[in-house]
Amino acid sequence: MSKSWNLDPIFYPKSVAVIGASDVPGKVGTAIVVNLRDLWSGDKIYPINPRKPKILGIKAYKSVKDVPDEIDLAVIAVPARIVPHVVKECAEKGVKGVIIISAGFSETGEEGAKLEEEIRKIANDSGIPVIGPNCLGVYNSENKLATIFNPPDRQGFPKRGSIAFLSQSGAFGAAVLDWLAENRIGMSKFVSYGNKCNVYEEDFLEYLAEDSATRVITMYIEGVSHGKRFLEVAKRVSMKKPIVVLKSGRSSRGARAASLHTGSLAGSDEVYDGAFKQAGIIRAYSMEQLFNYAKMLSMQPLARGDRVAIVTNGGGAGVMATDAVEVNGLKMAEFTDETKKKFREAIEKGVFSEHMSYANPVDILGDAPPERYEVAMRYVLEDENVDALIVIIIAQSPAIREDIVEKISSMKVFGKPIAVVIPGGSFAKRIARKLEENEIPTYETPEDAVDAMAALIRYSKFRSEGSNRT
Amino acid sequence: MSKSWNLDPIFYPKSVAVIGASDVPGKVGTAIVVNLRDLWSGDKIYPINPRKPKILGIKAYKSVKDVPDEIDLAVIAVPARIVPHVVKECAEKGVKGVIIISAGFSETGEEGAKLEEEIRKIANDSGIPVIGPNCLGVYNSENKLATIFNPPDRQGFPKRGSIAFLSQSGAFGAAVLDWLAENRIGMSKFVSYGNKCNVYEEDFLEYLAEDSATRVITMYIEGVSHGKRFLEVAKRVSMKKPIVVLKSGRSSRGARAASLHTGSLAGSDEVYDGAFKQAGIIRAYSMEQLFNYAKMLSMQPLARGDRVAIVTNGGGAGVMATDAVEVNGLKMAEFTDETKKKFREAIEKGVFSEHMSYANPVDILGDAPPERYEVAMRYVLEDENVDALIVIIIAQSPAIREDIVEKISSMKVFGKPIAVVIPGGSFAKRIARKLEENEIPTYETPEDAVDAMAALIRYSKFRSEGSNRT
Repeated sequence: MSKSWNLDPIFYPKSVAVIGASDVPGKVGTAIVVNLRDLWSGDKIYPINPRKPKILGIKAYKSVKDVPDEIDLAVIAVPARIVPHVVKECAEKGVKGVIIISAGFSETGEEGAKLEEEIRKIANDSGIPVIGPNCLGVYNSENKLATIFNPPDRQGFPKRGSIAFLSQSGAFGAAVLDWLAENRIGMSKFVSYGNKCNVYEEDFLEYLAEDSATRVITMYIEGVSHGKRFLEVAKRVSMKKPIVVLKSGRSSRGARAASLHTGSLAGSDEVYDGAFKQAGIIRAYSMEQLFNYAKMLSMQPLARGDRVAIVTNGGGAGVMATDAVEVNGLKMAEFTDETKKKFREAIEKGVFSEHMSYANPVDILGDAPPERYEVAMRYVLEDENVDALIVIIIAQSPAIREDIVEKISSMKVFGKPIAVVIPGGSFAKRIARKLEENEIPTYETPEDAVDAMAALIRYSKFRSEGSNRT
Repeated sequence: MSKSWNLDPIFYPKSVAVIGASDVPGKVGTAIVVNLRDLWSGDKIYPINPRKPKILGIKAYKSVKDVPDEIDLAVIAVPARIVPHVVKECAEKGVKGVIIISAGFSETGEEGAKLEEEIRKIANDSGIPVIGPNCLGVYNSENKLATIFNPPDRQGFPKRGSIAFLSQSGAFGAAVLDWLAENRIGMSKFVSYGNKCNVYEEDFLEYLAEDSATRVITMYIEGVSHGKRFLEVAKRVSMKKPIVVLKSGRSSRGARAASLHTGSLAGSDEVYDGAFKQAGIIRAYSMEQLFNYAKMLSMQPLARGDRVAIVTNGGGAGVMATDAVEVNGLKMAEFTDETKKKFREAIEKGVFSEHMSYANPVDILGDAPPERYEVAMRYVLEDENVDALIVIIIAQSPAIREDIVEKISSMKVFGKPIAVVIPGGSFAKRIARKLEENEIPTYETPEDAVDAMAALIRYSKFRSEGSNRT
């Protein structure tokens, strides 16, 4: 398929049929109905079950064709061998999008692959986008549509945000959703797409590129189905929104494990790496790094260069951040004479202690209150030699107060990217949360903050070079 | 000094004098008395204050010499210029150990350095170990002795555990304490040692080597005072307990920042790196890595080799772990025919699905309950080709129950190191916490778990080669 799918009926359905709906506790078809009923903002749920007139108090139908309403989305959770028949009925009904949760297809061998091929033909002939089979489906934080069948005491769903996440792997996808919820990282849309009946990686990129809720697209992949087309699309989308990819199967044994897991023929990692770079895809090497990058890219403006300033109330953390700047190939900003003069005058006026350092890292010392941060941040952000700012807060100091959040947030007017390092316990975490509510990304270590800033700076360079080309 | 100090009077004092004790809110001398009163298990607190007969309800004395009791530890928080006089009084009183919290010494310039030299002479002449000046002092989780002056709503203290942490930097030390408390990582002893009057890095190593509460020694340094002696001691101590070091000032700009911060002349990083390797010191590159390593080393036995088995209910995470094994220079274990036979027979008996994989990673599939984990873990741990085990739990699966904790803990009988990967929210975190209570280290990502296992395996190799030499 080379046309790009309209996935709105899947993410924003007006009506959802659950084929294989059940009320037996522990069944997938039960969990899906429960999640739709309890989470989704819509109310047109049509359970399909050949033997029961009602499912969990909702009127049920024997077949999707019996439903006296249009169906935007059908979620299928019936045994694999029945799925082709059910998809055919969906096509006859004029269903606009399908998610097949059921497993037992190409991932299990030849027989399953045949079933899958049968479904693909029906879907393509009738022009229906089909996500899956062998997947968890989708989560949309806007309308709380979730087809994920894990029990609610196990499975957290992230709050609204601007990071989209695509995962071939269902289990890893579920873990990521739960981890994002726990870490209060917002998400726009989630897809676990499994065996890829006829909606592929590049189709999701096309759709998310136009999705106003999504600012950054993140992916976990072991391989892609259509390498060339994926890269073409990614290159185009990258000029609009950053794409961050965690690709596993990098090592020889990892590639073998990947081929057993999802049938991905990984190809050499060097080839992927080069192709990703050309397409402007930002590569991450762990789940944490993926979302460290996504947080930065979704919250902060592009950088005009790679010269970093550091403002800190802890000398040690300042040294660590400085190391990280060099390790990541960035530059420590050299302040202008004008800036140095401002600092000297502020010391003379008693704003700063004479023991402070403005050699970058700017060490405003352990007893620095938010006011001192404010002056130091303003001086360095006013400096034309500074492209980005790392602020370090050792929040255990009694001089730190929660209004440091406003001081830092007010620095957005300078239009330069800012990240905050704030390690610690409940007080530190409270400040971090408030900063992120104000779209200032926070990290627990200097290394993570600088690493994420480096990703933003690399992406900024890709974008500006791309604009120059066109 | 080449003799090694007895630091028991500092970590396990029977009596503590606080010189510069205060009851004015916000003062350092107030916070220290409050923390001793509220946290410390001892009760012989002697506030020293020339103007007040009582401090916070406790009888105060004009001078330490007036106290009608022996003093094991004196904590000094008076202005720098008075400190020499006060230390002299401590010597006359026969105080057995001193911590100088006060700043304003060599870190501020020549005049301060002279004061510091004066104190050093008094301390050495009278044979008193003096920690600091310009430091936070100590925390001992056994008796809850804490001389850290940050307010209790800012500063968490970790629970009892077997990881010791040494930090020259006070601010970073405070952040680490708070972060460990938040992450429920146990600690034995903490020292922020500042300007090093006469107790140096190697003295702490000597002391902690004999400390029965400490299994792993962790350090944050920017440089050490006595390179040669430090390495000699570290080499000896490493054969007994692992030493993990986070050293900053690695880059040229970082080294410059370090020399401004603590006066450390960093020396080239390659030199440090080579010396660390020879001494068996394990190097970490961030706070997280430091404690990822420490957790593994404090909880798990040494490994006999570098062949890793992986058991997982999520294919994707299994692939990521496999990549990490190769990236870290470890080997994926090749199971014996015997083990493969066991798996085949278990599949025939229906213990495992025919779709499972035992090619390592052992993928026991998304619906695996704890019983299936138990069989798979036992099979691989019984295999002579397996030296270490990584268990991955995607806890969002409804098949996972909390009794997986017992199943994994029972695998300790095999005497091989085990680490668990368990990403997610509250349910996953609950299992993780229980596992760690049972001394099974847990991690949020495959990358972190394998990285920490690699550190354990490198250290195991150092130990076994060292034993062969001797």
